[in-house]
Amino acid sequence: MQDKHYLMIPGPTPVPPAVVAAMSRPMIGHRSEDFAALHRRIEEKIRRVFGTVHEVFILTHSGTGGLETAIANVVSPGDKVLALITGNFGERFAKIARAYGAEVDEINFGWGKNVDLTVVAEKLAGDPGYKAVLATQNETSTGVLNDIAGIGALVAKTPALLLVDGVSGVGGIEIKMDEWHVDILVTASQKAMMLPPGLAMVAVGPKAWPVIEGNSAPRFYFSLPAARKSFEKWNTAYTPNVSLFQGLDAALDMMLAEGLENVYARHILLARAVREAVLALGLRPLAEAGYASPTVTSVYSPEGIGADDIRKVLKEELGVTFAGGQGILKGKIFRIAHMGFADKMDVILAVAALEMALTRVGYPVELGKGVKAAQEVLLGR
Amino acid sequence: MQDKHYLMIPGPTPVPPAVVAAMSRPMIGHRSEDFAALHRRIEEKIRRVFGTVHEVFILTHSGTGGLETAIANVVSPGDKVLALITGNFGERFAKIARAYGAEVDEINFGWGKNVDLTVVAEKLAGDPGYKAVLATQNETSTGVLNDIAGIGALVAKTPALLLVDGVSGVGGIEIKMDEWHVDILVTASQKAMMLPPGLAMVAVGPKAWPVIEGNSAPRFYFSLPAARKSFEKWNTAYTPNVSLFQGLDAALDMMLAEGLENVYARHILLARAVREAVLALGLRPLAEAGYASPTVTSVYSPEGIGADDIRKVLKEELGVTFAGGQGILKGKIFRIAHMGFADKMDVILAVAALEMALTRVGYPVELGKGVKAAQEVLLGR
Repeated sequence: MQDKHYLMIPGPTPVPPAVVAAMSRPMIGHRSEDFAALHRRIEEKIRRVFGTVHEVFILTHSGTGGLETAIANVVSPGDKVLALITGNFGERFAKIARAYGAEVDEINFGWGKNVDLTVVAEKLAGDPGYKAVLATQNETSTGVLNDIAGIGALVAKTPALLLVDGVSGVGGIEIKMDEWHVDILVTASQKAMMLPPGLAMVAVGPKAWPVIEGNSAPRFYFSLPAARKSFEKWNTAYTPNVSLFQGLDAALDMMLAEGLENVYARHILLARAVREAVLALGLRPLAEAGYASPTVTSVYSPEGIGADDIRKVLKEELGVTFAGGQGILKGKIFRIAHMGFADKMDVILAVAALEMALTRVGYPVELGKGVKAAQEVLLGR
Repeated sequence: MQDKHYLMIPGPTPVPPAVVAAMSRPMIGHRSEDFAALHRRIEEKIRRVFGTVHEVFILTHSGTGGLETAIANVVSPGDKVLALITGNFGERFAKIARAYGAEVDEINFGWGKNVDLTVVAEKLAGDPGYKAVLATQNETSTGVLNDIAGIGALVAKTPALLLVDGVSGVGGIEIKMDEWHVDILVTASQKAMMLPPGLAMVAVGPKAWPVIEGNSAPRFYFSLPAARKSFEKWNTAYTPNVSLFQGLDAALDMMLAEGLENVYARHILLARAVREAVLALGLRPLAEAGYASPTVTSVYSPEGIGADDIRKVLKEELGVTFAGGQGILKGKIFRIAHMGFADKMDVILAVAALEMALTRVGYPVELGKGVKAAQEVLLGR
């Protein structure tokens, strides 16, 4: 049926009506007092989401632009960088650093595994010359959550900066940038922040500024010193996406009205419900329970059945869109997002649709069994 | 969660994004050529939905205004009217006729039953003096579908006009106004037509016009002769709700793109899925299968449990809104709409939520059992 779509991919995620309404407000000039007031309101609220007292720059580009902003301001040719990789987005972060001429040491923990802190500790003890350590909070390609607090405690003892990709985590999963010693934290609008794509948010801590000021890599649009200068007058260095700023203001209001603790607890509950349902259906989640993502669940397709065949039935017959696997997991897994504007009945719908699609592609499941498992989690039984 | 609502009441129903977008287009003058073109486009399409080659007037008031339009143009004080009543809206139609001075003979078939054609045939044979017969296609208060073709065949043999309330049916349930001998057919925007409330659509057949022209009841805003005069120039007699006209144009495009046969089959399928689920949970539908509505299913609350207690849990804990009972059924039934912008996963969601709410209020159901029954219907098994 036209327009009857249930988007359950890890970004872009569904946008709440209140955010759509805010984005439909009349355009305002970006050098106006109205914009400055809007920017200030956003800043006061978004710092709570980031767990920081420092500036969070709202930049008009996507999450990858946000990651490049972090790199371009910190890394110069020949700098040594340590990349902690648990999937596609960890690899991308390292790739950007290499594009800026860094000598990148990669530790690849495997797609579906999380960062092992003892390995990181050893690596940092063995080579004290890293300028930056790159980590991913929530690896979207695998549905793995990494221990940023643990990584932060290790990196804080060294001169290196900790740059964190929080793109599919921030806003849905707790992060305490200052307390956890994150020096630059990046997220984007189209994930747990409940907005369309188009904005990256980059927060910068005090340990990072001397490095940023002294960095020699070329940067103009991505310049954090330029962003900081404009920020003093609640301005942006270049033309901002005004509509998304208006939407962000509304999205932050929604998150704070719900209460950040409740937002985080909701994501954990939804992830548990999906996981129990998947297990009840005899399927295997990619990530172990101890480090499974609260915002996206990756599931292996049953033996002999292509994940994309399941996704095709879901989309064409039921209007439900799951994400597929990336890189080495292409065709092998599907990913169910429960991120941002998602609540109990959305995950029930996802599980029921999965049962129906599995039935269609010839994998025998007991209809309703996964739903029951999810219902029990959601009812707190 | 704010904005996370699943509206499953028999009107207003959810509005598709394409319709919202159309309603957001700039205002146009209602005496402009643009409006005339819009009106003409609508008319060409809506006649197919009504099953008529005659005028369908799009009037700016609610469904009750539409019923009053039918009565005000047909009934004068002292006229004899036969009202075929199967619930709240049948009673309302009769009440409007009495407000215009009609002598109304009511046949009340009981709330939850349908119109018995043999009773109607006897009544019409016994008294040939009726000016109008009032019938309800789809009785929203009970979820009962009446046999309009059957009633039409009986009334066509008499001088009486058949006035049909099609408010919660037209657009979701097949109706053939001309073939079935319906003289005035009324519907409204906020049901199967997938629009917000604010428009009534009133179609008038050739047998009705001499009666309408000769009627002596006072009428101005509700005047069908006035509507007909303006209609000749693709105009409306009084200021129309322009946004809803724009939305109606888009909604009709959606319906015709899907194909009316498919739209009707979809509603029947969804109703079957809900009914089987309800039965699997040990609950009792109000209407028997043979005349259960394709657009709304009424279900008795289990013994000792108030229907409104179930509805409260659904709304407050799960964001799902079912309708309650009306009149004598208040507190005894709940009503699940699957009307207009509704598809497979919506009814699955409704059933899963019902299971969870029943569990919460202490009625023992096997979680997932109703979902399974619905899934099987939807998978065609």
